[in-house]
Order: sequence, then structure tokens, then C-alpha cells
Amino acid sequence: MKIGITGTGDQRIIALESADRWLDFSRAFQAYRLLKEGSASEPVRDLESLFMTGKMEGHFFRSVTQFLEARHLLESFVINAPERFLRPFRPGKIIALGRNYAAHAAETGHDAPKEPIIFSKSPESCIGPEEPIRIDPTVGRVDPEAELGVVIARKARNVAPEEADIVIAGYTLVNDVTARDMQANDIKQGHPWFRSKSLDTFGPLGPVIALPDAMPSPLEVDIELRVNGEVRQKSNTTKMIFKVPELVAYISRYVTLLPGDLISTGTPEGIAPIQPGDMVEVTVPQIGTLRNPVTPA
Amino acid sequence: MKIGITGTGDQRIIALESADRWLDFSRAFQAYRLLKEGSASEPVRDLESLFMTGKMEGHFFRSVTQFLEARHLLESFVINAPERFLRPFRPGKIIALGRNYAAHAAETGHDAPKEPIIFSKSPESCIGPEEPIRIDPTVGRVDPEAELGVVIARKARNVAPEEADIVIAGYTLVNDVTARDMQANDIKQGHPWFRSKSLDTFGPLGPVIALPDAMPSPLEVDIELRVNGEVRQKSNTTKMIFKVPELVAYISRYVTLLPGDLISTGTPEGIAPIQPGDMVEVTVPQIGTLRNPVTPA
Repeated sequence: MKIGITGTGDQRIIALESADRWLDFSRAFQAYRLLKEGSASEPVRDLESLFMTGKMEGHFFRSVTQFLEARHLLESFVINAPERFLRPFRPGKIIALGRNYAAHAAETGHDAPKEPIIFSKSPESCIGPEEPIRIDPTVGRVDPEAELGVVIARKARNVAPEEADIVIAGYTLVNDVTARDMQANDIKQGHPWFRSKSLDTFGPLGPVIALPDAMPSPLEVDIELRVNGEVRQKSNTTKMIFKVPELVAYISRYVTLLPGDLISTGTPEGIAPIQPGDMVEVTVPQIGTLRNPVTPA
Repeated sequence: MKIGITGTGDQRIIALESADRWLDFSRAFQAYRLLKEGSASEPVRDLESLFMTGKMEGHFFRSVTQFLEARHLLESFVINAPERFLRPFRPGKIIALGRNYAAHAAETGHDAPKEPIIFSKSPESCIGPEEPIRIDPTVGRVDPEAELGVVIARKARNVAPEEADIVIAGYTLVNDVTARDMQANDIKQGHPWFRSKSLDTFGPLGPVIALPDAMPSPLEVDIELRVNGEVRQKSNTTKMIFKVPELVAYISRYVTLLPGDLISTGTPEGIAPIQPGDMVEVTVPQIGTLRNPVTPA
């Protein structure tokens, strides 16, 4: 299953893909609550509300669709496949990984790290599919970075690697856009990485969240970045130095993770700059393609 | 005026200090809405709701108290001065400053920076007054850092220094607790600062937010840190290299600030480690004292 946000304004809905068709999940969930709980409240139109109420845990989406299907009601919520998705959610916090693919560490002149290198990215950097990455020429070189994003479903503190699955709501795509000159200068001086990673629009996110049932286990997926159709990054998540369960365990040893947090798992080799006029695409076949044009700021 | 959160569970309230007395602002605001807007909704018991609805901007608190005072209703909301405050709010994001006092930069072996050094701290590190700073002995040396916190009232992007006042809701105290060995090791390797600043409980916050009318303008306040009653840090905000208006302008050039964000403005000289059993206090006279015991993790 996959979930995303589509529509505009008051007509925004949560769309759910299940068994190769798309559903208006906002209305489906409203019907479920009416029939099951007797309450006919307003439809939920965003994922933040589902995170806050713990709904992104476990088999929530499947429970709702199975309940409606058993009553022959699911058909009435089928919609056309959305043509466009919005930013799926505003992450509570973003914890990102540096140099988590050996070939990328090497291309930046570094050894593979012995423990995960974590930094944070401003949640306000996040934009949705098709929204422009805006580049101010004074910041110098700017690179896109294709990354797999892990969406957190429940409060997590000191999680063992073998229990990481329980706290994961699903997977999405992140373009960890980086002001490379600014970052290189900051690294040279031992300064924080935050600024070069957090500029407004430097965090494209989406187009959808693939629920764990849509992903192979163990997590072995291709990841690719294209600029103007030309492949620049092409790798597979098996090449991560620290895999997702280890990352969840490592981060949650230090920092409490909450529902709606995002872990961006690092980028493979192939970094190179983008310019206004370019079109950037990040693809993981099981999730989809996150496409963003580049414009001047 | 000052505002804070006090009470427990369903009895939590927003407390407001005005003209040397404390008010139950949650009930006062409920009365205001009933009389002024004709709506008798549930009392607002947290600042997050006020941030989200834009209420922390401008003269909101004064408008409410003046309205009630003019109708001779304010007296009925007077309460005893709260004995204990809770964490005032969960910041949307925390943007903190490195080396923003020259004497502190010098004691860490660095020159005064030529532009602000910004990093982020996990909002989940934040605890309230009297809550313990928990130290895991495996992280090595841990230092407290007294800092003035600036609370953001409204969305801010590219704010000019002379307009910074408009986006500031008030001022609070932050203890920017730092895993110093971890940070030193990360800085040496050019790694991010996030982890050493973001461990759970490493962000004491409060006890209250002083509204701008409680602070001198320009901002000239003493700041002090004591451990077990002994003064370790003693400075004044006039010694900041980059003052609050410049910080708001600088940060908002890169990162959109939202209501409920927190800027922690850096610490003066006098850093030294703490141990389980210690009691740490941060004081700015116009705000109060933020007191936290230190315990083993």
C-alpha cells in the first residue's frame, strides 16, 4: 500500500493505493468510524493528524480497507489515480545521515565512517513534488542527493535493531539538497552542517509514503537520481554502510523519535551540481518518482 | 508580563504575571472569548495552541487583560504565584548559536566568528524546570550552558534587523547542555554538532516566557549559571557578538522561522562539567531562574 496527499484546499484528501487501485481514504476512514465507532466526525485530510493519534502504527490502513471490503463498501471510495501529490507531511524533525554509502564517502575524500554521522535538517526546508528548488546564486554550488526516507510511526527510545520495524510507518523519497560550497567551508572549519542542508526548498519530499508491505524485506531497493533525464546516481540500499534497523537503533539511543519524524538515510555516489532550469528526479521503483524543477531564488 | 504553564494533567493552565500578580490566563481568555466573541469553548491550556493560531503576536495578552479589567472582571482570575512551572512549550525547531560571546569562543580555542554559527538541537531534548538532566557516563564530559532563548511569534522569512521585534513573542532561558567530549571529537573530524547537543534531557527550558514588555530595549540583561550555588558563568547579553535582531535577520535569510520556534543565542565564558548529584541554575533576573538537578541516565 501507498499513501499520499492530493487535491487542493478544502478538497485535499489522503489517497491510498491498495491492490492497484486508488481510494479516497479520507472518506473511507470517515465511513469506517461511522460504522464501527458510531461517530460521524469530519474527514481527516492530512497525515499529521494520523501521526498524532498513533494511527500510523501497525496495520491501520489495512484494518480500515478490510473492514469496508467485508461489507462490500470499498468500491464506492475508488478514485482515479491522482495526477499530482502534495508534500505528504511536515516532519516533526528530520535526522539525516552523512556518508552512509562508502562510494559517496570516497568521492567526498572521506573514509567510510565507523559509526553513523547524524545531522538535522530544518523541517521547513520540505517541499512537495513539482515544487521548485529555489537557488540563490550567492550560495555557490548546490547538489541534489537522492535518499530513502524512513517515516517514524511511534515514540522510539533505545530501540533494538530487531525491533526497528515496529516504529516504522513507511518509506518515502527525500532529495537532501545541499549547498555544497557552504557545507565544504563549514566542514573545513569544524562548523555545524545545519545551514547548508536547511535552506528553504532544500528538502523535496514524497511523492507518497510506501507502507512496509510495499517494500521488500530485508530492504533491498534501487535508488536513482536523474537531472534532465540523465542518470547521475544509481545504487541500491543494500550498499548502505549502516542499514535502516541499525540507524533507528543508533539514533534512538541518543534522541527520542516521535511519530512523524523522518530519517533520511544518506546518499550514494554521483553528486554533481544543479542550476536553475534543471529538472531533478529521484526514483525508488517501489515508491515512485519525486520530481522537482530548479528555479532562481 | 510573563507567561508559563503550571498545574497538572487536566488542571494545567497558562499562568500570566501582570502588574505583580498572577492570573489564570486559561480561564481569563475563556471569559474574554465568551464576552467578546460569544463563544464559550474549552479553555486553552497550552502555548502551542496560541502559537498555531497566531495569538502570540503583538499585544494579545495585554488586550485580554485590559478588556477584562475595563469590565472589573480581572480580579476573579487572580491566583497564587505558581510554585512550579512545567516546560513552557515544545519548540517547533531549535536553532542555536555557537561561539556568540567572544570570551567563550576564546576559552574553546577559537577566534570570534565572522558570521553567526548556527546549529540545531532536537526539540525532544527539551525538559521543564526541576526535571533531571540525565547523564549516561559513557558520553564523557557534559557541560551546561546558560543561554537566552528567543521565542518566535510569527512566520519569518528574510526579516530585516530593524523589524525583528515584530516576530519575537518573548524571551526564555535555555540550558544548552552539551556532551563536550562528543562535540570536541565531532568538531575535530568536521562532523555535525547535532548529536552532542540533542541528547534527551539536554535542553532544559523555562521557567516562563518574559514578554517583550518585561525586558529592557535594547536588550541588556545579566545572565548567570550556577552549579550547586557556585557562580560559573556571569555575563550580559550586550556581550553577544551578534545581537538578537541580527540573529533573527541572519537565520531567516536561510531558514523560514515559524511561530513556536526557538533561537538559543549562545553561551558566555565559564564552561565546566557537571556530574550526577549537581544542581544547575540559569538566571536572567527579568525572566527568573531555570533550575534542574543532574542524575545518572
